[in-house]
Amino acid sequence: MNLLLASTSTLFGGQYLGYLRENIEELFKGIQEIIFIPFARPGGISHDEYTLKVQVFFSGLNIGVKGLHEFDRPEEALDRGDAYFTGGGNTFLLVKTLHERGLIHLLKENIKKGKPYLGASAGSNIGGVNMKTSNDMPIVYPSSFECMGLVPFNINPHYLDPQPDLKHNGETRETRILEFLTQNNIPVVGLREGNWIRRVGDRITTEGSQLTRVFVKNGEPYELEAGSELKF
Amino acid sequence: MNLLLASTSTLFGGQYLGYLRENIEELFKGIQEIIFIPFARPGGISHDEYTLKVQVFFSGLNIGVKGLHEFDRPEEALDRGDAYFTGGGNTFLLVKTLHERGLIHLLKENIKKGKPYLGASAGSNIGGVNMKTSNDMPIVYPSSFECMGLVPFNINPHYLDPQPDLKHNGETRETRILEFLTQNNIPVVGLREGNWIRRVGDRITTEGSQLTRVFVKNGEPYELEAGSELKF
Repeated sequence: MNLLLASTSTLFGGQYLGYLRENIEELFKGIQEIIFIPFARPGGISHDEYTLKVQVFFSGLNIGVKGLHEFDRPEEALDRGDAYFTGGGNTFLLVKTLHERGLIHLLKENIKKGKPYLGASAGSNIGGVNMKTSNDMPIVYPSSFECMGLVPFNINPHYLDPQPDLKHNGETRETRILEFLTQNNIPVVGLREGNWIRRVGDRITTEGSQLTRVFVKNGEPYELEAGSELKF
Repeated sequence: MNLLLASTSTLFGGQYLGYLRENIEELFKGIQEIIFIPFARPGGISHDEYTLKVQVFFSGLNIGVKGLHEFDRPEEALDRGDAYFTGGGNTFLLVKTLHERGLIHLLKENIKKGKPYLGASAGSNIGGVNMKTSNDMPIVYPSSFECMGLVPFNINPHYLDPQPDLKHNGETRETRILEFLTQNNIPVVGLREGNWIRRVGDRITTEGSQLTRVFVKNGEPYELEAGSELKF
């Protein structure tokens, strides 16, 4: 497989996908056109507008972009496509839509054949085993929380360290992930903004400007430097 | 109905339920014993330990507490109980457990007869129409997101205003609730910590030390002062 699963599409103050430009060029080397999956977006901008934003970025790499929502037969579009990008938004809406339309299994099978896949935020969540470590609000009810399992762990995008100055009693991200581990035995990779996971063939590594925090059942969380291999 | 639905059990630096003491005394006036529902707690402390913490608080009001997990027949316990308290934790786990064990409908019917109900955090979420405005991580998959609908709106506990100093690209709470409203036509009451909803008979009011932020489909969010009636 050939994957890049990013914590976020946009760094604070940065351009859309800007910090990932070189890595995306490498991921999509030799690709003329990708299929963009805009279904995570619940509002604010339409699927067309979201796709346009993606087209603007990829035009700089001489790669064309078609939105999956543009096709009358999205199943065929997935099978004919050479590469895929799923953008961020709400993971519940994304997973609900992909299950409802019978697309998630098809996307997975195509990616497992070696077609490159880029995910950002919610689009990275669906690369994990399931979406039970999403940070999103459950605004819709998906028929299942199962995801593609392109990597043998779950992803927590936008991983945020505890904020000691915040006088607020909501749970920290770490507490939430440890609670996930009381109910599930699946490792969780906490991706701080600026970080991503790269899979080339069977080798899975953590990449980016920050340390990556890893959580496993019955063990202490630990930190990995960029370039470390993820093995469970 | 006779309800108190609180944003949080504990204010920053405060004692468990301390800031609500007088209001809980009024809610549970004449009650000798309540049933505590500890199912939201995914780890950290056991159901017994959680119940003990609640017993310590209520002993100061001369009210006994039985944990619902202690009963072989929780259905009977709910029907025989005079009043209820559901504590905080993870809303997905709470809702999954209550649906799985067939208890949510029974609890609702008893509360609708007039038996007093206290909720904190996840325990307040289940008083709303559904749990689609929970802040929690989806660590388990409930068979439904439907809740008790004791009030004709949804609750967002621990409502947090945007933090302009946080250089992080996760969605703000307001953005998330507005996204909920793109998919659902149910008003949302954002309860800042220190606030609660009181229902006595048909009259529903916002209470507490902060303004309460209200979100409706196709309208601007607005703020209500303590003592305001909630009508939709």
